[in-house]
Amino acid sequence: MNRSELFELIRRKKSFLCVGLDSEIAKLPACMAGLEDPVFAFNKQIIDATIDYAVAYKPNLAFYETNGVKGWISLEKTIAYLKSLNSDAFIIADAKRGDIGNTSTQYARAFFEPGAGLDVDAVTVAPYMGEDSVRPFLGWEGKWVVLLALTSNKGASDFQMLEVNENGQTSRLFEKVLRTSATWGDAGNMMYVVGATQASMLADIRKIIPDHFLLVPGVGSQGGSLTEVARHGMNKECGLLVNASRSILFASSGSDFAEKAALEAQSMQREMEELLKNSGLL
Amino acid sequence: MNRSELFELIRRKKSFLCVGLDSEIAKLPACMAGLEDPVFAFNKQIIDATIDYAVAYKPNLAFYETNGVKGWISLEKTIAYLKSLNSDAFIIADAKRGDIGNTSTQYARAFFEPGAGLDVDAVTVAPYMGEDSVRPFLGWEGKWVVLLALTSNKGASDFQMLEVNENGQTSRLFEKVLRTSATWGDAGNMMYVVGATQASMLADIRKIIPDHFLLVPGVGSQGGSLTEVARHGMNKECGLLVNASRSILFASSGSDFAEKAALEAQSMQREMEELLKNSGLL
Repeated sequence: MNRSELFELIRRKKSFLCVGLDSEIAKLPACMAGLEDPVFAFNKQIIDATIDYAVAYKPNLAFYETNGVKGWISLEKTIAYLKSLNSDAFIIADAKRGDIGNTSTQYARAFFEPGAGLDVDAVTVAPYMGEDSVRPFLGWEGKWVVLLALTSNKGASDFQMLEVNENGQTSRLFEKVLRTSATWGDAGNMMYVVGATQASMLADIRKIIPDHFLLVPGVGSQGGSLTEVARHGMNKECGLLVNASRSILFASSGSDFAEKAALEAQSMQREMEELLKNSGLL
Repeated sequence: MNRSELFELIRRKKSFLCVGLDSEIAKLPACMAGLEDPVFAFNKQIIDATIDYAVAYKPNLAFYETNGVKGWISLEKTIAYLKSLNSDAFIIADAKRGDIGNTSTQYARAFFEPGAGLDVDAVTVAPYMGEDSVRPFLGWEGKWVVLLALTSNKGASDFQMLEVNENGQTSRLFEKVLRTSATWGDAGNMMYVVGATQASMLADIRKIIPDHFLLVPGVGSQGGSLTEVARHGMNKECGLLVNASRSILFASSGSDFAEKAALEAQSMQREMEELLKNSGLL
């Protein structure tokens, strides 16, 4: 899915919600127990319940890999199901990959190749290994790298916030990552992860990358504010995908989990519709 | 496998060789074509040919994930085969994972849990997301984090070599990563990736972490020198695992690939035996 198609999807669904499919098997409602593939069955119901309110879905690979081969099958079935729907969805594999060039080439094929690979729209990549670890993901038509910039966890302060020197100027490491990596691709094949717990920093980030889409975790369970994120981060093509995982997936632990997930997603969509209207994008 | 068992294995095999199982399906010898699981069949022959000369094996996940579910099955079979042998081997999943705490907990289970997970000895982890992304991997008896510090690729210079300020002092980012992360665990549950193309920097690194094991890629195809690595990096318990992947796996593209792999591994083992003797470790 390219940039203009994504913006059109956002306008059509009046939403920039991404549902994070962190489908931890131990947290699934009791009514899923005993099914042949409880993770896929759960995801299918969550997708059906939220597809009118969400433009994107983000399976986090850890929650599939932890179930081994069975987990990879659940992941493939989930992606195939999303692609089978009439309602479009932008699919992000939250994998935080990145390795030397020839290895990243293999990861890119695993995530992007139609037929052989998962054929998702985007994959999250960690920046620590630099340009040649990211570039193999950038040569795919309509596919995206979502590079980690400023994450929403406590450990973000360990390295991402460090002050770095270059050519007599100082900046924070995540800002240097933004400036350097923005030269590797463009706003049509790169997005950035920016945690909502740091919403006030979105203004600084927008000075460096005014046009790129930002994938924003940390709204909901992690406590970030949607209004604050929109205020500092929205641009003329929205430029935001706001992710919520546990607050939607586990809105109820009972057999009404899908219904409650729909209500939670709908509530976020309505708030997003207002924010899009206020910015003149609808 | 704990630290003293690893050192004993190194002394017994007179080797600190790690064979990187970067078993790219397109590069397998023609004689593998048509087999039901060519990647596993190839790995099995490589392992049989090199097990007398290697103390460790490092499947790189990218080369398995790129084959989807089949790839994950090849990986599980390879690990099960390594565990079935009488000759011990330290198994490193080269996965470069790392995510927020509850997600890293799932990755740790995927790689470490006996029975349910892959149950390998170690996993490579990227440091960008900080302490809570690494800590979930550290609570497992006899299991190890191998944290990226200074990698062997060109892109290592993009961020890892940046000068960072802290408390009025400057250092390079990879040195800051070493100093900070060394407080999260100890030399019994953490190792570091340090590329051999930067062998001269091993002396600087040993000032910060004298005791930790280093996993050193970049010898062989990538051009690093084993003697230089040992000179600057070896400590009183060896402290080195030197990885070779393509130079062993693809020593021949013919049906003699396993024989040629054995010769290449044996040649490295003999060089390592000399280096261990010269350091008084044998």
